[in-house]
Amino acid sequence: MMRIDILTLFPNMFTGVLNESILKKAQEKKAVSIHVVNFRDFADNKHKTVDDYPYGGGAGMVLKPQPIFDAVHHVTKDSPHPRIILLCPQGERYTQKKAEELAKEEHLVLICGHYEGYDERIREYLVTDEISIGDYVLTGGELGAMVIVDSVVRLLPGVLGNASSPVHDSFSSGLLEYPQYTRPADFRGMKVPDVLLSGNHRLIEEWREQQSLKRTFLRRPDLLENYPLTEKQKRWLEQWKKEKR
Amino acid sequence: MMRIDILTLFPNMFTGVLNESILKKAQEKKAVSIHVVNFRDFADNKHKTVDDYPYGGGAGMVLKPQPIFDAVHHVTKDSPHPRIILLCPQGERYTQKKAEELAKEEHLVLICGHYEGYDERIREYLVTDEISIGDYVLTGGELGAMVIVDSVVRLLPGVLGNASSPVHDSFSSGLLEYPQYTRPADFRGMKVPDVLLSGNHRLIEEWREQQSLKRTFLRRPDLLENYPLTEKQKRWLEQWKKEKR
Repeated sequence: MMRIDILTLFPNMFTGVLNESILKKAQEKKAVSIHVVNFRDFADNKHKTVDDYPYGGGAGMVLKPQPIFDAVHHVTKDSPHPRIILLCPQGERYTQKKAEELAKEEHLVLICGHYEGYDERIREYLVTDEISIGDYVLTGGELGAMVIVDSVVRLLPGVLGNASSPVHDSFSSGLLEYPQYTRPADFRGMKVPDVLLSGNHRLIEEWREQQSLKRTFLRRPDLLENYPLTEKQKRWLEQWKKEKR
Repeated sequence: MMRIDILTLFPNMFTGVLNESILKKAQEKKAVSIHVVNFRDFADNKHKTVDDYPYGGGAGMVLKPQPIFDAVHHVTKDSPHPRIILLCPQGERYTQKKAEELAKEEHLVLICGHYEGYDERIREYLVTDEISIGDYVLTGGELGAMVIVDSVVRLLPGVLGNASSPVHDSFSSGLLEYPQYTRPADFRGMKVPDVLLSGNHRLIEEWREQQSLKRTFLRRPDLLENYPLTEKQKRWLEQWKKEKR
């Protein structure tokens, strides 16, 4: 069973997310055990202070090394190879590939700062990974930790039932997903494409392949750079490039 | 005051995040009002079904258009120019620039699917934006909605007090942040760089500028492509490129 420890100053932020949907089920099925730890409890000073002014001056506060080092040592003391992950804007950009890598681990420790920077010694001497979930500024690392937990736990064996199929997800296949439609065929004048009502499975498969590729070409051409295109797909792309001119 | 409506099938997921830290304070200060709406309540069928099988076959279910169209119409009926945002893997990749753009709006509606795809007519005829927070697969749009709410609300006037300075954040300046240190100067043998203890503010500024640029160069060279480098910064970069060879 995978173990995840989340170190945060705002443990209550996690209540809703960890107790609903897939994460709730995954814990009930014993695929993962998730522990939220307030690292303020590890501060060794009388006032339980976790931050202090930056050396060299400047605005903002910096998270002290002591409470975070001691909290990490506490949760990893029986753990042979923990992955110790700092959520921060300077980190490696998180991808599905990284989620797949982390899903093979036995123990993840996620460290969430809030507002402030981390003392650099945490980066240099304590953590194994620095991860950023995207190029935007968040109040803290908590949402990043939730993103990692959700994306990793759904990959663990037995977590996703028939409710969902990870194979056809966008990013897993390398292309964006094709358009999906459900009933009614005519919703307030907005119609489902005829091909999907045709019952011709060969045509439907081809339409879906084409739509998936076209959407990726139009919205995320960067994803095609390393994609192994078939000859037919190359011809489609040539056609669309001509049409765009 | 900005208004945000979040349409979801899992309203309880938002309890922790919306009632802590900055988002709690922002609502208390009346900078924003946030409403979580279960769009299942708008399903017009007896069993309150929100999904159905995909036309053309295939695994998984698809969210029906009716409950989402009607929920959006309900929350936007008195709203002249709402931004109606679909969280989905096929969307535009979210950035700080987009957060700054959304922070100028009066009304955001965030639509969160869960497990399944959306009926394409929701994309085509209802929403103004499709957003993805990153290239990884999540169980639903809820974490994406939280990321948008957090990143946008912290930019609203009056929300961040002296507790934090948005100016020096990574991404806002275009470079990753420089290393920060706080007391003690020697933590279990791990030391703070001498320059930060020197009291020489000119040297400290230069060290920080250099470290910020160097970290961006090493970790996220893509961010430098459109960055307006000074002559001094260009010389530093040339030097580091030589050292890397």
